[in-house]
Amino acid sequence: MLAERNRGYFEAKNILALNLVSSPGSGKTSLLEKTIKDLGKDINFYVIEGDQQTMNDANRIDQAGAPVVQVNTGNGCHLDSDMINRAVKELNVPSDSVLVIENVGNLVCPSLFDLGEAHRVVIISTTEGEDKPIKYPTMFQSSDVCIINKTDLLPYVDFDIKKCRAYALKVNHRLKFFELSVKTGEGMDAWYRWLKESMSI
Amino acid sequence: MLAERNRGYFEAKNILALNLVSSPGSGKTSLLEKTIKDLGKDINFYVIEGDQQTMNDANRIDQAGAPVVQVNTGNGCHLDSDMINRAVKELNVPSDSVLVIENVGNLVCPSLFDLGEAHRVVIISTTEGEDKPIKYPTMFQSSDVCIINKTDLLPYVDFDIKKCRAYALKVNHRLKFFELSVKTGEGMDAWYRWLKESMSI
Repeated sequence: MLAERNRGYFEAKNILALNLVSSPGSGKTSLLEKTIKDLGKDINFYVIEGDQQTMNDANRIDQAGAPVVQVNTGNGCHLDSDMINRAVKELNVPSDSVLVIENVGNLVCPSLFDLGEAHRVVIISTTEGEDKPIKYPTMFQSSDVCIINKTDLLPYVDFDIKKCRAYALKVNHRLKFFELSVKTGEGMDAWYRWLKESMSI
Repeated sequence: MLAERNRGYFEAKNILALNLVSSPGSGKTSLLEKTIKDLGKDINFYVIEGDQQTMNDANRIDQAGAPVVQVNTGNGCHLDSDMINRAVKELNVPSDSVLVIENVGNLVCPSLFDLGEAHRVVIISTTEGEDKPIKYPTMFQSSDVCIINKTDLLPYVDFDIKKCRAYALKVNHRLKFFELSVKTGEGMDAWYRWLKESMSI
């Protein structure tokens, strides 16, 4: 399995590989931009961007200051371990760095493909409805970390954050949660602490 | 092609078949609930609900007052024409009615599968970012109608509605737009007018 080969490669070079998954528009790229801007002095970030089309996200990450490769999947609905293997070599990711893979925005397909990541991080935003974890259970089952984003919009939407967590825990009782707003910065600290703790440097 | 067979069946019975597609949480089910409640006296709605798991959406539609069949796709990321063929017979959809197919929430896969529908209606919400039409172009290319939902949240999000329309027109210059808020009811009238005009009863 090429995913296991990727995992071995990351292990050998002490690269922390994260696979960011979510619906389109949940805020994967914004989270990443802000994280790179805030922690880029201490941590070397490398990014692989997956999208059906456009270089938009790669351009945003480049502006934020991290080396990035964009993979366009065309009609494909997810990244696969072979794409990651090639992109990692193209990026020439050095030891002791963090590789963030931003998957294609999709709550179904990317759940079925192991890329060799250390952690799968699923993002759900408060505008999406709290029942998504049980309607798209495979994604929440296969993730370690669940970020609930756009908490700044809570006053304006019907979203029961407790119910959302309960539904997510129903399909995966080991999930670790972060509630945050990339826009206002609220709650980002805990996410940053987790990132630093997860790097065994 | 089973999609063509479905199309012939709908034509023969004068059934207007719509295929509702979007990201998870853009508001497909809410739009449908409100539409059924508001127009249910004049129009016979029949609904096929697609989701990976749960009966949640079917229960909501049932409460709204329309006959509904839920199709759970398991690991599948879209409905297909065979599922529709079976569900239509199970629903026993009568002549001169509207069949709404709510696809699995996904901006990639459902774009590749013709179900035999008369119109494909893509929904994007103002919380998702205006560049989605060019990042997921196949879906916007293959749709006839684009609903921009959650206009009530415009004051609280960074979403340029003009840019969104321009991007969508770039991939499909024939797209017809409706800007609306299912929550407040703003803009629903134009959508209802279009629905009635599209029924050749």
